[in-house]
Amino acid sequence: MRSFKSDYMEGAHPKVLEALINTNYEQSNGYGYDVYCDKAAGIIKKLCNNENIGVHLLVGGTQTNLCLIAAALRPHQGVISPATGHIQVHEAGAIEAAGHRVITVETSDGKIKPEQISSLCDEHKSGRNREHTVQPKLVYISNSTEIGSIYNKKELLELRRICDENGLYLYMDGARLAYALTSDENDLTLADIAALCDAFYIGGTKAGLLFGEALVISNNIINQDFRYIMKQRGAMLAKGRLLGVQFEALLSNGLYFEIGKRANAMAKRIKNACIENNIPFLIDSPTNQQFLVVPNNTAEKLKDICEIWKKTDENHTAVRLCISWAADEKAVDEFIGILKDVSA
Amino acid sequence: MRSFKSDYMEGAHPKVLEALINTNYEQSNGYGYDVYCDKAAGIIKKLCNNENIGVHLLVGGTQTNLCLIAAALRPHQGVISPATGHIQVHEAGAIEAAGHRVITVETSDGKIKPEQISSLCDEHKSGRNREHTVQPKLVYISNSTEIGSIYNKKELLELRRICDENGLYLYMDGARLAYALTSDENDLTLADIAALCDAFYIGGTKAGLLFGEALVISNNIINQDFRYIMKQRGAMLAKGRLLGVQFEALLSNGLYFEIGKRANAMAKRIKNACIENNIPFLIDSPTNQQFLVVPNNTAEKLKDICEIWKKTDENHTAVRLCISWAADEKAVDEFIGILKDVSA
Amino acid sequence: MRSFKSDYMEGAHPKVLEALINTNYEQSNGYGYDVYCDKAAGIIKKLCNNENIGVHLLVGGTQTNLCLIAAALRPHQGVISPATGHIQVHEAGAIEAAGHRVITVETSDGKIKPEQISSLCDEHKSGRNREHTVQPKLVYISNSTEIGSIYNKKELLELRRICDENGLYLYMDGARLAYALTSDENDLTLADIAALCDAFYIGGTKAGLLFGEALVISNNIINQDFRYIMKQRGAMLAKGRLLGVQFEALLSNGLYFEIGKRANAMAKRIKNACIENNIPFLIDSPTNQQFLVVPNNTAEKLKDICEIWKKTDENHTAVRLCISWAADEKAVDEFIGILKDVSA
Amino acid sequence: MRSFKSDYMEGAHPKVLEALINTNYEQSNGYGYDVYCDKAAGIIKKLCNNENIGVHLLVGGTQTNLCLIAAALRPHQGVISPATGHIQVHEAGAIEAAGHRVITVETSDGKIKPEQISSLCDEHKSGRNREHTVQPKLVYISNSTEIGSIYNKKELLELRRICDENGLYLYMDGARLAYALTSDENDLTLADIAALCDAFYIGGTKAGLLFGEALVISNNIINQDFRYIMKQRGAMLAKGRLLGVQFEALLSNGLYFEIGKRANAMAKRIKNACIENNIPFLIDSPTNQQFLVVPNNTAEKLKDICEIWKKTDENHTAVRLCISWAADEKAVDEFIGILKDVSA
Repeated sequence: MRSFKSDYMEGAHPKVLEALINTNYEQSNGYGYDVYCDKAAGIIKKLCNNENIGVHLLVGGTQTNLCLIAAALRPHQGVISPATGHIQVHEAGAIEAAGHRVITVETSDGKIKPEQISSLCDEHKSGRNREHTVQPKLVYISNSTEIGSIYNKKELLELRRICDENGLYLYMDGARLAYALTSDENDLTLADIAALCDAFYIGGTKAGLLFGEALVISNNIINQDFRYIMKQRGAMLAKGRLLGVQFEALLSNGLYFEIGKRANAMAKRIKNACIENNIPFLIDSPTNQQFLVVPNNTAEKLKDICEIWKKTDENHTAVRLCISWAADEKAVDEFIGILKDVSA
Repeated sequence: MRSFKSDYMEGAHPKVLEALINTNYEQSNGYGYDVYCDKAAGIIKKLCNNENIGVHLLVGGTQTNLCLIAAALRPHQGVISPATGHIQVHEAGAIEAAGHRVITVETSDGKIKPEQISSLCDEHKSGRNREHTVQPKLVYISNSTEIGSIYNKKELLELRRICDENGLYLYMDGARLAYALTSDENDLTLADIAALCDAFYIGGTKAGLLFGEALVISNNIINQDFRYIMKQRGAMLAKGRLLGVQFEALLSNGLYFEIGKRANAMAKRIKNACIENNIPFLIDSPTNQQFLVVPNNTAEKLKDICEIWKKTDENHTAVRLCISWAADEKAVDEFIGILKDVSA
Repeated sequence: MRSFKSDYMEGAHPKVLEALINTNYEQSNGYGYDVYCDKAAGIIKKLCNNENIGVHLLVGGTQTNLCLIAAALRPHQGVISPATGHIQVHEAGAIEAAGHRVITVETSDGKIKPEQISSLCDEHKSGRNREHTVQPKLVYISNSTEIGSIYNKKELLELRRICDENGLYLYMDGARLAYALTSDENDLTLADIAALCDAFYIGGTKAGLLFGEALVISNNIINQDFRYIMKQRGAMLAKGRLLGVQFEALLSNGLYFEIGKRANAMAKRIKNACIENNIPFLIDSPTNQQFLVVPNNTAEKLKDICEIWKKTDENHTAVRLCISWAADEKAVDEFIGILKDVSA
Repeated sequence: MRSFKSDYMEGAHPKVLEALINTNYEQSNGYGYDVYCDKAAGIIKKLCNNENIGVHLLVGGTQTNLCLIAAALRPHQGVISPATGHIQVHEAGAIEAAGHRVITVETSDGKIKPEQISSLCDEHKSGRNREHTVQPKLVYISNSTEIGSIYNKKELLELRRICDENGLYLYMDGARLAYALTSDENDLTLADIAALCDAFYIGGTKAGLLFGEALVISNNIINQDFRYIMKQRGAMLAKGRLLGVQFEALLSNGLYFEIGKRANAMAKRIKNACIENNIPFLIDSPTNQQFLVVPNNTAEKLKDICEIWKKTDENHTAVRLCISWAADEKAVDEFIGILKDVSA
């Protein structure tokens, strides 16, 4: 039985793997100075409709987040993040290790509200001794979020406005951006995001690459000397070509969007089956992650194919399904069958 | 009119100042290698009833907290602190700048409960991927707390037990320890604290010195090479003698306790006047800080002699009074008179 | 014409690539908790003849160095390194970004001498104010070094002895360990190195992998909680299996040693041709890097196939050849032909 | 017998002490928001002939250096310093703990040469992979230097020019600036220094204060939010008034220059006595530090009144005399007498 625990359990999408195989014996310069990285950057600039952005290919998400934040902030500045943000809950204190506080705000859906930002900034500015507290300087959001929700264009515009009012950078973690952009409910484009965020990344690891995240930096101040920061944090791959080759394959011919759309469709199939079977959700997610609330003993039976997420009450547990590029209808239907059995 | 905004508005207690004047022309080695620092350390060891503790004299509280925490933790480890803890709210991210997360817990009275610690540690240990989260390693408490409350011996014993169970260090910020130890409700001694905490400090700045905090480290692992850490963080005073001289004066002949007792008595005089006049408190504090809840316009009138603390509802504001070594009965009675006037 | 600029210009050795292809569609747990990582660790423990070592698979060398050093040192401690050490010259201040000084010593051959270490430690210990200076705590060496030389067993034993005398850790950067261990002049085994060093790594990136370094930590104090440090520094690969699969392929059936031996043989072929043609060397290297000293105009002509290393005098330049797993006799002979032409 | 080991063995100059005594019972706001700090800043701005500089009063030199450098640099940037610089040899890795490398250059006289800076920058810019190395961004100099020498105006102008050419900040550590500015050989004013450096400090600890360094930041980019950085590094004194009061006393009525002149005159008296007695110097110092080269057994006899500096050859040792505000002619003549005796 196929597991749905996460979207990075398999290797690369066949087209990506093929591109790696085809280029394996070529010689290229290291550290991202090769034709494939150039091509990947070119494609991304086109998708973002902006020639003046910085594009940097890194290996993983924690690495990408910490490099960007290290490059953007002065020592006394901190990051505003939802309490569910990856930098807060899954990066072992990477941001603090770079010297910066993560200032968290509680959310019901993983999405930060503009008024939470302005309220934090107002409180900071009006404090008796503002210089005795961390200065908020960057807003971290994820799209899709860690619990599957997405931002729409109106929300992102509003976040940008509030950030501008308060002199803040806006940064989007796009580990699962593929699934956000191809959700039925999405109205954002890569060009919108590049225009509205100071930086964001196009996640590859969770969208069919062996590894790789393409960081886009629209803000030139942050982008300046960014490669030094990458190198210093051990985030510059020696055989950088591997990243260029993979992103070229992923972003050519719409593969990236195809992968997102397909996984979202599989997720919807599961979602509909749950609705039919009166299985409630932790949150109404329009993307490839689904959080089912099931009796504890059901959760126990599913634990090899779903991620145990958290207790929702004494008798119930939320489990996460996370659909990858590799899931097909047959596997999904098998899962639905098992779910019906164990729920019966 | 005398202000009660804080307990560090005046210079040094006359006996402390006198000691500085008397020794001004003596020559001594720098950086704490002088007879006065030795004497001060000797007195502290006696008060703590332990010859094997490390005693280090530093200039200020933020400095002391950050040096101790930097010395104690490995990079992946964090500090558990009440959300009101000084390291969280008034140190501009000093702990994060040293690379460590402050993990906060909410409290009603500024005091952390043992079950909050064990719950945090259990959650950490049972996490899906514990190494993806910050490892709690040190518990930070203040005594008296930032809002005037104190720990009793039973509570401290219980905190020690929970820390031992979870492999945690226990560290007490004693910026206002003078006022805790001389509170009517106190049952702790310096020897108890030295025995139960891995480290703590005897605050001087807020207890009649020009400046100075005497850090006591009972745990030899943390104490090892501590002077390197002090030097590295700019926390080793060149004319270290100034600290030794002041602490010798403060801790000889019970001056430290006398200062605490006197300020607490003044605070009680104000407290009683409030009770008589039906002025409620934000918290029932048995120490030199009192938090009065008054109508907004009263707060406005008091703002030059009290610290505006926070709104408690739309119409009321908590103001803080903080009694120093320099306050006398006359000043206190004057304040009570004003309070009655503006409250009338 | 094939370039010899570096040993990481091509992708993976065919056997390594094949293993990746074969396992691409398998599902596995992330972050190194998979059977391939277990197998790779098992092989390495056997090669090191020690079941109690920690084995951690990371993506790149800078990352590996900074994680190990961050895990090993307290804030006031520094690293002793040859002035040519990778951490000093090619890591953009990664060690300093982790808070530690690199204390360099000059060498003629890239190898640190025991008496340089003891002299530094003696100077530190006898200093007027030793706590005003960085405490040396870890010795960083590379094998083979950045200029191709290697340590023999007697030298390593002596370094270990001096480190023990001074309470220092000994850490070997093994980015090119494959070439050291298979050099004609080598008398060390992986088991020797594991026994004599507190930690070292088996470099994969420069020995036929797409990427990957296998860090071996013999010292349990350093090894404790090491995975937290990896995660915190963004050095834990999500699809960790990729590292396990590659190292299993590399270390099974002697492929690792075969790759090293072959490249060294190619290097020797070039070396002999130089000797025949009276082309001198910057250093007498017994490994896969060769540093030829040629007239400036020759260097200019070779600049697309050799790395320009440095000027040796006004008229001469050292160029580096660095032989990878992918170089064959034909390519080498072609190079020798060109070299004769341009030198003529 | 009075010791000449250092210029911070005594307390404060009587006029400074008197100012502290006179203001001891006044109440003032904490953290530098008081009238005395304002007055001190006003005097300094006048002396620097610039109203737009930032003035910040800190407790000690290491603290001042690390705060300024932390405020000025991004993570990948480093500091160029003479190998004898205080940040390199006496601050226990404070700069590295803030994340930055100290890039040292060898000097004969403690003074960096413009061509050393441009050579370092050229090497950095022309490197194969410049982003693999630390980017030089700030030049650290001391005046007077750690070995007593001083910069003249022509030299400082030239340093400024080279810094501008290379986009570098210029920062002067003025721990002993009093002695530089009042040296017979000096042609610089505080206004010159404020105009030519991005930042510098007027050292108080070594010029008659109990403690205190007045940091002047001419560069507004560095000055922005500097108080956050101070607070974060534990460098903001609670009773900030103490610094304002002392600096007001020191800088009013020329006391600062008087102290410098007097100590230099005493140093010259010793210098002349040495010349008469054929005692050579390590360096020809025109300020309050003198480095005498004496036979080892003479050094041994002087070790309680001079600092043992270093061996100059097998039979000779350099000892340092460092004249403070408290030294008078009688003490100096006594020393000369002893010197003649032990040298005889």
